[in-house]
Amino acid sequence: MNTLTLLLALAGALTSLQPTNSSQPPTSPSEVLAAATPEDWRAVEADDLLVITLANGKQVFVELAPTFAPVHVDNVRRLARAHWYDGSTVHRVQENYVVQWGQVEGEPVPPLPEGVIEQPPTEYEVSLNDSQLARFTLVQEGHYTARSGYLDTWPIGLETSGSRVSGGLIHCYGTVGVGRGNPPDTGSGIELYAVIGHAPRHLDRNLAVVGRVIEGLQTMSSLPRGTGDLGMYETAEERLPITSVRLASTLAEQERPNFRVLRTDTTAFRRYVEARANRGAPFFVRPAGSVDVCNVLLPMGRAPK
Amino acid sequence: MNTLTLLLALAGALTSLQPTNSSQPPTSPSEVLAAATPEDWRAVEADDLLVITLANGKQVFVELAPTFAPVHVDNVRRLARAHWYDGSTVHRVQENYVVQWGQVEGEPVPPLPEGVIEQPPTEYEVSLNDSQLARFTLVQEGHYTARSGYLDTWPIGLETSGSRVSGGLIHCYGTVGVGRGNPPDTGSGIELYAVIGHAPRHLDRNLAVVGRVIEGLQTMSSLPRGTGDLGMYETAEERLPITSVRLASTLAEQERPNFRVLRTDTTAFRRYVEARANRGAPFFVRPAGSVDVCNVLLPMGRAPK
Repeated sequence: MNTLTLLLALAGALTSLQPTNSSQPPTSPSEVLAAATPEDWRAVEADDLLVITLANGKQVFVELAPTFAPVHVDNVRRLARAHWYDGSTVHRVQENYVVQWGQVEGEPVPPLPEGVIEQPPTEYEVSLNDSQLARFTLVQEGHYTARSGYLDTWPIGLETSGSRVSGGLIHCYGTVGVGRGNPPDTGSGIELYAVIGHAPRHLDRNLAVVGRVIEGLQTMSSLPRGTGDLGMYETAEERLPITSVRLASTLAEQERPNFRVLRTDTTAFRRYVEARANRGAPFFVRPAGSVDVCNVLLPMGRAPK
Repeated sequence: MNTLTLLLALAGALTSLQPTNSSQPPTSPSEVLAAATPEDWRAVEADDLLVITLANGKQVFVELAPTFAPVHVDNVRRLARAHWYDGSTVHRVQENYVVQWGQVEGEPVPPLPEGVIEQPPTEYEVSLNDSQLARFTLVQEGHYTARSGYLDTWPIGLETSGSRVSGGLIHCYGTVGVGRGNPPDTGSGIELYAVIGHAPRHLDRNLAVVGRVIEGLQTMSSLPRGTGDLGMYETAEERLPITSVRLASTLAEQERPNFRVLRTDTTAFRRYVEARANRGAPFFVRPAGSVDVCNVLLPMGRAPK
């Protein structure tokens, strides 16, 4: 039994030790959240938070995932700090797939800020150590990767090769990734996309994921679909200009939005997953008994004042 | 070995007998479609096609699935024939979930046309016979149900209990179902929803699925999200009126739109699934090797003149 197997077995044993009361109806996801304590949440760091302000006055907030794609995330931070994205556009909206913004492929590229790596390494997966694996919460097995679940609040697929366990971020609804051309190009971060459809898991381990939309995705997902190839807007007039993209850490403290995400190495999260997998009465007749890793819908939002 | 196992084994053997040329790059989904013959497609029957015309002038087309929920589909046809939906509204748009139209819960219900069954049976699954099972094409195993795949062009989850194999339609992006209150209510069809997010598979075998949007879903999915509970529009002004809902079979022949769907009991479809599971060069670095039943994206659209 290797370390991972042991840890998973222990986690399973702990989960099964949770007190349950079989005379009670199954707990609903909202009941689990209502019972969560402040310690069950973690704050979103200001240096990991992008504030995108669109020309229509609406804002979209993206949490960055520096652990999984450090060079790409560093690029995005540098581009934001230099106000490089300001004046670029949302120019692609493809039904049941992605919305894309920033640089338009084929158009002249404004000079990049100092330190931006034009061809980052292929940060499509990372090796995980025992400490990380101890914090991994399994959601499902055998769907795209041997194991799928959450590590430090991020949906991730695990694969094992010899003694190495690798983790790759999963493309769920709301995942933000880096557009690119054909390999070896991995994209520099000048064009970004967010998923607005059924999880396009064939993109996993093929593109660099840099984060997720934490609030405001509906502003992008409700845009008119582009009528060009791949949902590109065919005219400049259709494009939605981006007024500004800022790292929250560069805003005055009182202007920084405060978000939080449910931690995923907790009993509260395991109960939440179980509740999502077993929706019960009065509405549901037959609980599914399991849940897709992308249908867990990890709770996240504004932190209470 | 029971009949189903035998049939699946035979299907597997046939698939593995397909001629392949390992010196060629993997075939792409579009190459498979380009090589499909007219016999690989089936027409959408005019009596199975709903034409929804919205007040903004746009149209949404829904193909009905009478095999799986005959009483609910009969209700929907009767409601359409009686023009019952005309003047109702799209009144709920919930991000990453559903758009809903027709009757607004809690508001007075106009008289129902003759023959509409107010409390249909729980048509959430059907028993499948050997002939149907022979036409079933497996896409994946162990995800929500033991087997998932396509039967007569519909995504379906199979479960086996003794000698009975049941099939339930799967809630994918674009699936159309019947809104309802708490059980034993199954919904009469006066309120309908379409999925506009990641497949909400917990709805499978809990609500009656009556069809899928075959064209025009982007008109609904790009509507502003409702700000009320469950994405309900909070004011009457936000609601988008429905000008008319017609069964194509009641339109003059020259006004009937002609749609087609790729058949799923064919080599062309099996190749298409394989191509969707193994996206290759020049863009993809690492093919996924499998595909979620809801990410097959069954080809469908206007029939060529």
